[in-house]
Amino acid sequence: MDLNCLSQWLALSEITAVPSTIVSRLLRDFESLQDVVDAPDLAAYGASPEIFTQIWRTLKQTVAPPGAASALLWCQQPGNHIITRRDGAYPPLLKEIVDPPPWLFVRGRPETLLLPQVAIIGSRNCSVDGREAAAMFASDLGSRGLSICSGLARGIDTAAHASACKAKAATVAVLGCGADKVYPSSNLQLAQEISHTGALVSELPLGSPARAEHFPKRNRIISGMSAGVIVVEAAERSGSLITVRMAIEQNREVFAVPGSVRNPQSRGCHRMIRDGATLVDSPEQVVEQLCSLVDFQIGSLGILAAEPVALECTVANGDKTAGKAEREVLQQIGYDPVTVDKLIERLNMELPVLHAILLKLELSGRIRCEAGRYALT
Amino acid sequence: MDLNCLSQWLALSEITAVPSTIVSRLLRDFESLQDVVDAPDLAAYGASPEIFTQIWRTLKQTVAPPGAASALLWCQQPGNHIITRRDGAYPPLLKEIVDPPPWLFVRGRPETLLLPQVAIIGSRNCSVDGREAAAMFASDLGSRGLSICSGLARGIDTAAHASACKAKAATVAVLGCGADKVYPSSNLQLAQEISHTGALVSELPLGSPARAEHFPKRNRIISGMSAGVIVVEAAERSGSLITVRMAIEQNREVFAVPGSVRNPQSRGCHRMIRDGATLVDSPEQVVEQLCSLVDFQIGSLGILAAEPVALECTVANGDKTAGKAEREVLQQIGYDPVTVDKLIERLNMELPVLHAILLKLELSGRIRCEAGRYALT
Repeated sequence: MDLNCLSQWLALSEITAVPSTIVSRLLRDFESLQDVVDAPDLAAYGASPEIFTQIWRTLKQTVAPPGAASALLWCQQPGNHIITRRDGAYPPLLKEIVDPPPWLFVRGRPETLLLPQVAIIGSRNCSVDGREAAAMFASDLGSRGLSICSGLARGIDTAAHASACKAKAATVAVLGCGADKVYPSSNLQLAQEISHTGALVSELPLGSPARAEHFPKRNRIISGMSAGVIVVEAAERSGSLITVRMAIEQNREVFAVPGSVRNPQSRGCHRMIRDGATLVDSPEQVVEQLCSLVDFQIGSLGILAAEPVALECTVANGDKTAGKAEREVLQQIGYDPVTVDKLIERLNMELPVLHAILLKLELSGRIRCEAGRYALT
Repeated sequence: MDLNCLSQWLALSEITAVPSTIVSRLLRDFESLQDVVDAPDLAAYGASPEIFTQIWRTLKQTVAPPGAASALLWCQQPGNHIITRRDGAYPPLLKEIVDPPPWLFVRGRPETLLLPQVAIIGSRNCSVDGREAAAMFASDLGSRGLSICSGLARGIDTAAHASACKAKAATVAVLGCGADKVYPSSNLQLAQEISHTGALVSELPLGSPARAEHFPKRNRIISGMSAGVIVVEAAERSGSLITVRMAIEQNREVFAVPGSVRNPQSRGCHRMIRDGATLVDSPEQVVEQLCSLVDFQIGSLGILAAEPVALECTVANGDKTAGKAEREVLQQIGYDPVTVDKLIERLNMELPVLHAILLKLELSGRIRCEAGRYALT
């Protein structure tokens, strides 16, 4: 989005009492505040005449308020981005929820937000078993081209992010503070790594400290961006259960990893399974169940691709016709496993596009992935 | 059953080719072979004229064949019993399955077969976690008055039986060999203990060795006698899965205990849960789910009780009217926990009857059980 328009929207959000949900709805349909005031009727947006006056005032101001001004400066630094819901880089599944944030502050590589994502969440006070399970799911699903989403908290979140980084897979951390901060501070170095292989994301104004009330809202973004949520260890009363409730409201798949009956940190997962969540003890089970949502995501990605032809993915299971891009990728894969880096080198293709095609080919059973390397089946 | 009649039935089974299912059906409706030949029509039993001739021949024989003769001798030794499906001591739920055995050879205390039963089964090659979980469920459910049924195999079966014995609870071992044998021989001492606190049961002729083909038939008795089957650890291809299939056909509840995702012995349980079995991580969850089947069992027990009035159990959850026997039991229970032995002493009541009443009172929330002792709630 044009910086001038963005500045107006940020200012509106900063200085007026217009609720964020209304800002988000207006932003969905209007490029600039000028377009809003030119609109014949705003009643459908829940905008009262009072709100209309606020918008007018914001538009007339010639100097951006301090928050908006510093946000504009921030997003011009390398690696920093503000992605509005009008932007092609906005996570496609997040647009589908009831209250998508009007924009996201993003540190790192925004293209990872376009990959099919799966959330891995759980207890801060997890057991060794839980940490290992989170790491195993993150590394395996990450190597298959899914981006691993979590909340950068201690315990399970940390294990999931760290394992994805180690597997050179994409990972997205949604923060309960501003995108220019890191909480908890023990994860400063991990956050640095994530900004290289993935992205740190927040809807909160820059500089916001981590506060208890931010976390439930943060959790709706974690589940909203993801095709499914995997819970690894959760005590009977746990914050993870809030994320799960949101995931269910957002129509996302909910998976729970079981554990020993003697581990109190597994009780929440067991309760979820008794209540209908899908038990998973291997990453394949997650991939199988997510096919349809991942397909939707790949479809959205196709629209955004620089060369639209590159994603004419018409391959269904067993369908032997393939798009041009898929054929190109297939030609570079043999029975000898090859890394993603090697494929990038050979194909001159964007990483998210390549990942999406690899996932599609894997789901259709034409290639297989082992420890991050791809080969024909 | 009268020894003479029993001798005829055993002889029929031993020397003719009449299938066991037909013997069982005939035995359901006729006291003696004489009654069978006097019947106007046997077509409904699947008995051809040929079978009728066999029955005739058996009836005319004056000397019992060796197997029948030695079985009669065996069951006159202390602690040995042959219980036919006409006997009141035959397990009530087992009568309900498609192919109940015509009789059971029982070593130990046949009255334990009348208690509400729950089966605990699983891998021979179990982990320490699995053994501990089996022991925990067996000891807790046993202390609540349920009889613990299993197959005396190594691993989970052994842990369940041993833990029930240790908790002084009733336990029933269904054997894949004759009731006068023990397999595996490593469980000789455990079998001895079971014969004191519970029962060893087999439908096979005395002297039968343990054979692979006996086990699936044995498993239908384990699930058939039980209100529910709890599987603790089972590999992906496991004998326990056969028992589970039978339990489902017999309309029994199937419970599975989860475990670590790194434990290959938990894979079968996880698969079962994904396919619809109920995940349980605490014994309370089993008790809650079994209420209705246990009620049925207590009803059957009422018919058999020496004093029928003793079991006019009309208490539903929250219903404050209680039968005479329940009132008697309640009068002996205070807020200070009391053992079953003490109650037996005070009440002069049969153990199965007392157990059934205690379970009923516990399910209705009027008393609670802690470590085998009962107190008012």
